[in-house]
Parts: sequence; structure tokens; C-alpha cells
Amino acid sequence: MKVVIAPDSFKGSLNAIDVASSINQGVKKAYPNAETTLVPVADGGEGTMSTLVAATNGITKKTTVIGPLGENLEAEYGVLGDHKTCVIEMATASGLDLVPKEKLSPLRATTYGTGQLIKDALDNGYRSFILAVGGSATNDGGMGMLQALGLKVLDRDGNEIGFGGGELGKVHSIDLQTLDRRIPNCSFLIASDVQNPFIGPNGASHVFGPQKGAKPNEVKILDDNLSHWADEIEKATGIRLHNLPGAGAAGGIGGAFLAFFPAKMRPGIEVVLEYCQLDKALENADVVITGEGKVDFQTASGKTPLGVAKAAMKKNVPTIIVAGSVGEGTDVLYDYGIVSINSIAKEPMTLEESMNRTAELLAYSSEQVIRSYFYLATKGRSFLCK
Amino acid sequence: MKVVIAPDSFKGSLNAIDVASSINQGVKKAYPNAETTLVPVADGGEGTMSTLVAATNGITKKTTVIGPLGENLEAEYGVLGDHKTCVIEMATASGLDLVPKEKLSPLRATTYGTGQLIKDALDNGYRSFILAVGGSATNDGGMGMLQALGLKVLDRDGNEIGFGGGELGKVHSIDLQTLDRRIPNCSFLIASDVQNPFIGPNGASHVFGPQKGAKPNEVKILDDNLSHWADEIEKATGIRLHNLPGAGAAGGIGGAFLAFFPAKMRPGIEVVLEYCQLDKALENADVVITGEGKVDFQTASGKTPLGVAKAAMKKNVPTIIVAGSVGEGTDVLYDYGIVSINSIAKEPMTLEESMNRTAELLAYSSEQVIRSYFYLATKGRSFLCK
Repeated sequence: MKVVIAPDSFKGSLNAIDVASSINQGVKKAYPNAETTLVPVADGGEGTMSTLVAATNGITKKTTVIGPLGENLEAEYGVLGDHKTCVIEMATASGLDLVPKEKLSPLRATTYGTGQLIKDALDNGYRSFILAVGGSATNDGGMGMLQALGLKVLDRDGNEIGFGGGELGKVHSIDLQTLDRRIPNCSFLIASDVQNPFIGPNGASHVFGPQKGAKPNEVKILDDNLSHWADEIEKATGIRLHNLPGAGAAGGIGGAFLAFFPAKMRPGIEVVLEYCQLDKALENADVVITGEGKVDFQTASGKTPLGVAKAAMKKNVPTIIVAGSVGEGTDVLYDYGIVSINSIAKEPMTLEESMNRTAELLAYSSEQVIRSYFYLATKGRSFLCK
Repeated sequence: MKVVIAPDSFKGSLNAIDVASSINQGVKKAYPNAETTLVPVADGGEGTMSTLVAATNGITKKTTVIGPLGENLEAEYGVLGDHKTCVIEMATASGLDLVPKEKLSPLRATTYGTGQLIKDALDNGYRSFILAVGGSATNDGGMGMLQALGLKVLDRDGNEIGFGGGELGKVHSIDLQTLDRRIPNCSFLIASDVQNPFIGPNGASHVFGPQKGAKPNEVKILDDNLSHWADEIEKATGIRLHNLPGAGAAGGIGGAFLAFFPAKMRPGIEVVLEYCQLDKALENADVVITGEGKVDFQTASGKTPLGVAKAAMKKNVPTIIVAGSVGEGTDVLYDYGIVSINSIAKEPMTLEESMNRTAELLAYSSEQVIRSYFYLATKGRSFLCK
């Protein structure tokens, strides 16, 4: 029997590689002769870079960049095993987790560091990029990133605009000629599930601003500023971001990529699965096990387990899900060839205990579900093949 | 497909009948056309009477008896659907749960009420008895029960001995002629897993005395008294209980049955499964689902899930276990045709929450495990039947 193991990380507990390894332990305990293929994956959010690097036997590179609030920090990006494609995870340079909660300020936070990562990769000769844009602390419409790549963004007095979404209202001119000349010869694949437009009630500021620390009055300022920034971008590039789906990703950096770069946007899980070559692993598999920390009604909107299940369904491979928590509204998942949705909990326990015991619980629950799944096929009664 | 559902109660949460019904809901949600047979069971402990009555469409009868500490209470016994066999659950008349914890006193507690239940059944014409002896508050060697059935137990002054294990040391004579004359024409099946002898370090007082409230010095008194009582029983009946396996069940009432009554002792789960006709339900079944509140290393020593699995294995039917908690050391269970041992927990939660949500959690987890179990057989790839 052939089992593919393609889980996401269990956030705050185990990365995807360790999750896969724990599931593998359980599968092997149930059926020592099972042929397992470990394909740890990610949905474009946290862990995407390290997962893709691990999946392709790539490497990581470190460089010092300016963090969200102007501080220096060491950040890294990945180079995949093809020695050509860089994976930039925005969160490592401009991420929410880099800023203490009480200091979060999308008015000030900049994407400059993300631009510096791209610049470092360009300087090292790379021209192919995957951008994982989840978990940003910023709402600057990608201006900082563009500035790091040379773009002159000036106010009405001809001075360069400062950092943060609070400054965008002052933009008076954009000099396209100043943008790094290597950009047009690159390809940028933006891994993002966000369909939100740049501005308005469904735009970046209103929908994601508050979780980045924007107070209600600041949300309005941020949205007005992005609106002005979109006007200026339209003047400079002819591209109208205002209502463009996806342009609102990661505080509007999505829009910046789409307007200034040769960029395409695709759902994170699809990008990851392609680079992890899940399709190849699925050939002739009898089942794929996927999972993440929490599975609930949101799982049906682009999270890893659904992405894996969709890919598996195309190959006629059933999918089993294991999760730390199974919430409500998961029945819709059965439409995607999902066999069962199983919690790793072995007994009543706190969230903290569950997170401390994730490896052991994953191994146990995977063992049990695989025992159930293959039992009739291997030891069962003959009614199966009547 | 044919699914037999044969769980025990989830103690403190749901009785066996409700557990079976919740599992059935889950199975039917997974496969609406599944043919299910509900056989709620018990292991001879709490709930045995009600389970057997329900399984056989029997009735219950109530009568007022003397409780463990001499108080009046209403207790009931069951008459099975054969209209012949009575089920007496000792805990309803002489049980640990009838006494507030701070009042527990095996020196004083009597089995008199259990004897009154038997007497009431005799008066109603019944001659066939199943005794479920779990959960007693007593350590009186069955003396109270015998007294309720007429036996004169006298001290050296010719006075009747009082209630409780503390009085047994005074026994000077037993007049066998005084025991209810109907007893020899009866049959008593004692449902008990206890293999402990009457006395000594593995005897009733040392092993079970403390959990019935005996302090260390009292344990010695109780054991000495049971030893004297065993001497007197041997004088009166010729039967030597001292080291007899099983005689130590339920504070020694096991020994009283074996010495004075036409009685046989059998493991509780076996007795229950026979009367519930599990064997019949298992004919041509594709799987049996069993379970109880907690499954762990102790489950292998005579608890319901193992009893069900053993019965199922004889019929070549695999067993799936669901449990509120899955503890350590359960791997040994796989030797008994057990497919998998699954917790009902869906996410991290307290024991209290798990107990409040047992019905829902049972339905969900049973649905999932049955989906996994039958998937390949019903929707799977063709490798199964190559």
C-alpha cells in the first residue's frame, strides 16, 4: 500500500516537516511495510518558504534588512533546489510577528525589508520569484518594497516619502524610470488566497487593518491614503488597482506587484503543491493524509487540507484529514473525496497540553485511522470482493 | 453492510443504551443504508441490571430495603424478558454510591438490603438469579444478605449478630436450618471478574477495604473478622472460603453465595453478553463498535470492550473501539481482532465538557471511524480486489 503524507504545519506547535514525520511514524506502526512519501506543504502563509526549501532540497540565504518599524533585522529567503527560484516570505522581513503587539502600527510599518530581500536575490543573479505574502504587519500598498528597489516616490516638494501607510497621502509623483532595471526581466509568482480589492469596505485597510493594530479612525486614514496611492499608480502605470481582486493582499503589496512587476497571483496552496510535486507523489497512491492545527468551516476556503484533497481527487486518491481541533461545518469537505476528518486528541486535555504533545498525538491518531482505513482491505472478511 | 453497536455506558455521562443510540446516529450519518443492531452491554458493574432489562425487554420491580448503614431506601431489581430470570444489582441496595463519602464505614455497612431484594423476588415466585456484585459499600462477608434470608448467625450468648464487617468477629454459631428453604431450588449466577480470595493480603479487606472507607487499622480488623467468619462458615458448610478465588468479591459476599447457595461465578461481561444475545447479533456482521468512558491498559482485564472483542473474534467480526479517553498501554488489545481505538474528543476540551458533549462527540467520532473503515470497500480504488 502506498500512503502520501502531505500536511501543513500545526501552527505554534510543529512545522510541516515534523508533522509529516509524526504521521509517518503512526502509519509505519500500523503497517510497517506501507510505502510512504512525505510531502510537507503550506498554504502560502507562515512556513511556506522553509517547506518549499525542504521539499526541493534548496538552501536559505540571510541578509540584514529594515524591519517593519525601521529597525535592522536579519531575514532570510530561500533558493529552491532548481537553483533558480527564490522564495521570499514577506513575514520574515515585514511580518506581524516581528512587532510586539502594543507597538503594531500600520500607519508606520513598511514593506521596505521585503524589497531588500528581493534586491539581495537580484544581486545574487536570481530572476524567478515566489512571494508568500501572508502575515504582514504593513498597510503601505507596497511602497516600501518599491522604494527598496529604487523607485522614487516624491511629495509635492520633491522630497522622498517616508515609511508607512500613513505617508501615502502625500504622494505627488512616481518616477517609473527609477525602479530597478532588472525587474522587467524577472517573473514573480504571488502566492495569495486573498481576493480583496485595494480599497473600499472590502479593501486591505478595512478588512485587515484592525488585526494589524489600526484603530477605527486610522482605518479610514489608511483607506483614504491607499485610494490616493492607487490614483497615483494609475497615473504612472495605467493600471487601476482600486477594485482589482487580490490587489488588497498583504496591505496592498499585492497591488504593487501587479502594477509594477511582471507578476501573476495564484492561490498559495496551488503554488506550493506544484513546487512540492505533490501530483507526482500521488501517482498510484492509495490514500493521502493531510492536516493542520485546526480544521473547520474555513478549511473549505483555500486552506491546505482542501488544496491537497482537490489535487488528490484529480488522481482518484482519497484524502484523510488529521487536525488538532475539528470545529463545526466540516461536512462540506466530504465533497472533495475526503474520507474522514479526525482529531488527534486522545482524551480531554487543554490546548496547551495538546500543543506540547502534538507529535505523539499525531502518531497515535494517524496509526488508528490508517488501521481503520486499510483493515478490510488487508485482514477483512470476504464481502468486499463479492 | 451490517454494523453491531455494543458499547458499555460512559460512566457519569451516558448509559449504555444512550451510548449505543449516539453511535448509531454517527454510523447512519456515514452510511444511511447500514443495517445496525444495537446491543448495549455492561461488564457486571453499574448499569448491568438496566442494560439486561432493556436488552431483553424485561421489567423492573421496586421494594423497600435496608440500605448499607441501616436506613430505609427504595431499591429495584430486574426481571428479564424470559419472565423467569431476576437481575439483582447489589449496588442499588448496598452500594458505595448510596453512602456520602464521609460516612463510608465497612465496619458497619451491611448487605442486608441485597438479601431483601432476593427475598422479594423469591416471594414473587422467581428462582433464577443473576447477581451483579460491583460497587458495594460492604465488607461483611455476605452476612447481612444471609440474615435477610433467614439465617440465624449468633454470638456466644445466643444473640443475633449485628450489621457490618465489624461484628463478624463475634460469630459463634450459624444455624443452616434457618436459611430460606427456597434457596436450594434456585440458581444463582454471580457476575464478577474478581479473582481475589476471601482473606489475606489479596483478600477483600486489604484490596477493596480502603476504597470503601476502611482506615489502615480497620483493614486489619476486617480481615481478621472475615477470617473468623470463614472458619465458622467452614464449620457449618464444609466449604473453605479462605483462599478460594472469587470469594473476596464485593466484601466477601461472593464467598457467601459460593458457600450457602447453588451458585456459579462467571465474568460479568460474559454473563451480560450471553443474556444480550450478542452472538446472535454478530452473525454475518461486518464490524462491531464497542466502547466505554475510558480505555487503557486495564481494559485488557475483563472490561466490556475486550469482552465484546473476544466474542466478535470468535465470529470473525472485527471490533472498533470508541472511548472518552484513550490511555496508555492499549496496544495489547490489537491481539483480539481490534481494528482501532479511537477517542471521541474532537478538540482540546475539559473532562467536564467532554462529559457534557458525549452524545454529540460519540456520534461524530463514530461517523468518522466508520467512514474510514468502509471507504475502500464502498468507494475505493480497485486494488482491494485484485
